[in-house]
Amino acid sequence: MSDASLSARALETLLGDWRAGAGSSAYLALSDRVRLLILDGRVSVGTRLPAERELADRLGLSRTTVTTAYRHLREQGLLQSLRGSGSVARIPGAPAVLPAPPATLHLDLSKAAPPALPWLAEAAREAVDDLPSQLGDPGFDPVGRPALRQAIADRYTARGLPTSPEQIMVTIGAQHAIALLSRVLVGRGDRAVIEAPTYPHAYEALRAAGARLVPVPVAPHDAEAWGEGLLDEGEALARAFSRANPAAAYLMPDFQNPTGRTLDEYARERVLEAAARQGTVVIADETTAELDIDRGWTPLPLAAYGPAGTAVLIGSVGKTVWGGVRVGWIRAEPSLIRRLVAVRAPGDLGTPILEQLLVARLMPRMDEILELRRAQLRAGRDRVEQLLAESFPEWQVPHVDGGIATWVGLGAPVSSQLALAARAQGLLIAAGPRFGIDGAFERFLRVPICQPVADLEAAVQALGRAWEQTAGMPAVDAGALPAVV
Amino acid sequence: MSDASLSARALETLLGDWRAGAGSSAYLALSDRVRLLILDGRVSVGTRLPAERELADRLGLSRTTVTTAYRHLREQGLLQSLRGSGSVARIPGAPAVLPAPPATLHLDLSKAAPPALPWLAEAAREAVDDLPSQLGDPGFDPVGRPALRQAIADRYTARGLPTSPEQIMVTIGAQHAIALLSRVLVGRGDRAVIEAPTYPHAYEALRAAGARLVPVPVAPHDAEAWGEGLLDEGEALARAFSRANPAAAYLMPDFQNPTGRTLDEYARERVLEAAARQGTVVIADETTAELDIDRGWTPLPLAAYGPAGTAVLIGSVGKTVWGGVRVGWIRAEPSLIRRLVAVRAPGDLGTPILEQLLVARLMPRMDEILELRRAQLRAGRDRVEQLLAESFPEWQVPHVDGGIATWVGLGAPVSSQLALAARAQGLLIAAGPRFGIDGAFERFLRVPICQPVADLEAAVQALGRAWEQTAGMPAVDAGALPAVV
Repeated sequence: MSDASLSARALETLLGDWRAGAGSSAYLALSDRVRLLILDGRVSVGTRLPAERELADRLGLSRTTVTTAYRHLREQGLLQSLRGSGSVARIPGAPAVLPAPPATLHLDLSKAAPPALPWLAEAAREAVDDLPSQLGDPGFDPVGRPALRQAIADRYTARGLPTSPEQIMVTIGAQHAIALLSRVLVGRGDRAVIEAPTYPHAYEALRAAGARLVPVPVAPHDAEAWGEGLLDEGEALARAFSRANPAAAYLMPDFQNPTGRTLDEYARERVLEAAARQGTVVIADETTAELDIDRGWTPLPLAAYGPAGTAVLIGSVGKTVWGGVRVGWIRAEPSLIRRLVAVRAPGDLGTPILEQLLVARLMPRMDEILELRRAQLRAGRDRVEQLLAESFPEWQVPHVDGGIATWVGLGAPVSSQLALAARAQGLLIAAGPRFGIDGAFERFLRVPICQPVADLEAAVQALGRAWEQTAGMPAVDAGALPAVV
Repeated sequence: MSDASLSARALETLLGDWRAGAGSSAYLALSDRVRLLILDGRVSVGTRLPAERELADRLGLSRTTVTTAYRHLREQGLLQSLRGSGSVARIPGAPAVLPAPPATLHLDLSKAAPPALPWLAEAAREAVDDLPSQLGDPGFDPVGRPALRQAIADRYTARGLPTSPEQIMVTIGAQHAIALLSRVLVGRGDRAVIEAPTYPHAYEALRAAGARLVPVPVAPHDAEAWGEGLLDEGEALARAFSRANPAAAYLMPDFQNPTGRTLDEYARERVLEAAARQGTVVIADETTAELDIDRGWTPLPLAAYGPAGTAVLIGSVGKTVWGGVRVGWIRAEPSLIRRLVAVRAPGDLGTPILEQLLVARLMPRMDEILELRRAQLRAGRDRVEQLLAESFPEWQVPHVDGGIATWVGLGAPVSSQLALAARAQGLLIAAGPRFGIDGAFERFLRVPICQPVADLEAAVQALGRAWEQTAGMPAVDAGALPAVV
């Protein structure tokens, strides 16, 4: 038995705005949200949940509501009541204690991130040479060193979107940029449109800022091959804007994470036109925008498709240089940059200077870096697609033309169980529901393509062993559970 | 005329929880909060405030309430209504547009931070040598590299507080640590005790997490010399804990920023005893704890004075190494460390690796670094105290025995005007009210002692010129305004 336990306050934090869209059935909304937390691993198997009375007090609910929610979870096999130990999280068919991954094989594919640039240390050495010239001030830098802001602006200009350094703010990675923009653009109770599925830490940041999330489905890449017909995503987003009047929308226009799809130019114009009409600010996360394998055309950065101020762009070096170099940026109108700088201090006091010097050295070499990455991604994608087709003929594997991952259809709602079984095989991988907010995507799995080919091969082998185990587990399907109305 | 204008949404963000403690007079609470924003420069002179109707809609107030608040601000000379331009922020006696600092002299004493360590680049070069060994994983590191956690734990152990690496989380500076702890320890509506005056970004972080702030006065260092008698701070804090039942308290036990006072051992025990009884977690910011000039005794880290889990410690290298090296840390029970890691992802994905390698190289040399800093601080303090005594005989200048600043009594409520006039003299300095939440401290000014002596000399000269100008301005005293009840 794991000895982890969760306080009512900690569970409240994890629950986020679980009441949103809950209608009148608080117990259903609560149990469904706890269920998701268990299935996607944010509440580990074996964790003791807070006592009913404690949780009821914390959430301002009646004791009965919490009791009913817990009973509902027990009926689904997601909670086990142990005498003297309270209520403990379970997954049906899974062992009572989450097995530690074997020490011999530990592959982390829960992050779709490439290995470090081979010549990173060499570039860092050059950056240290630049350090003495930077030591003349207190070092707290909430907006970014002038040379780096210029280098980032120059790259946008070279990509076809004229940009001045005043339009750039340097952040501690793309996630930090998302969090800052959420805080400035979203007030408590405002709506925010997100793609579904999407990158989970993005919607977590919007939620933390108080947003009510409005998901809009993403057409899977290669949607025609899925036999579902092409959704007109531009139209779907535009309708969501006019219906929900959101303060902001978070989109990944290129090689979307996790699906890999790219918005076409018509959709880009349509989305920004609707956003401008509604006063919605579109946050376009372009971290993966240049990770092109064989897309066949190159869109401009999203802001080029609409009036100034409608799209705010985010970029970072996390998927090109390395995740351990924490530099990202925001491209926005100078007035918004000033507001972002003003709200930054309660969270952090600036981007480290040495990191900035390093990235300032790397930005002018971005074409060279991208050439290397594209070759790696091509090799990774080709091998993953080949191995998945061989090993799992029943899965639907789309053919992605860039980005960091492919979004695989499993044919059955078993993604959480598969991810759990994979863990016992030494493979960490994120289950489909991690990329949604409402329990969907249990039939999908994100399989990264950006790791070294040998790692991807080992991962698919581990997945094969996990898949055999998963076949024996009962499916926990979101569709089989009462909907949250 | 400045062309800056503030949207209702942006002003709402700046206002924070302005209603807290407002009682029945919403217009007074609103006008008082806007007044503070103007006086401490967060709403710049010349900025156009949102239209009354727009602000009323945004804040869910009646139009009359906003109109009355704006009229109240106009009567105090803090708002000017211009035909066709709406309502523009002013400071009585100050020029309508905030003068840009002259380019020839630009001293930033708004940050009490020392210059960079002279051999920083050398240490960074060594850190780059360690980089290749770190490149084997995705690089996202929300908890900290093992070697750095060990080095930080070792330093606590050496200071007399046995600590294991599992009790350490590495953060992006101390402010980031405060923000993470606020998010985990404080729920919306929970109370949080802070010192008054205190470090402003700390209470901003607590507020952002939804805390209702409960200020407890700090006895000025050298309080006897002020003729006010020694307040028993331990007792005052303990009473606040039992009265307000706060979820958390944020304290700087050593060389408090801005006052410089150190809590004695009796107060430390008293505070933790009361906190343990109440279930309050004390967040002790010990960023400046080792910046001892001539205190004459050395307290242990605060957690040593109470039961495990009662005090969570924060440290950083911002005041020892350089503000441009963004590494801080949290020392807490391992279960709290795990919760902090779990809530980190919506804000950022980890601490940069190269920064961590750099600090891992510096931690074992901390005694050497502190020796250098203490010599610099002694020189700075002695010179500042001498110059202030010579130039401003009417000011009350306490004799601090360590830390980064001294908290000077001006004898009149003119700190905001003085800071504004200093700006025109090329000196940026934070006015007293910046360190309070309720408009107090207009009679105080924080004067840093940690910059190079030449800079401090130039700063006092600029302050002298500003002081002459300030004499002609009418005082805007918080005490002369209606209290917020």
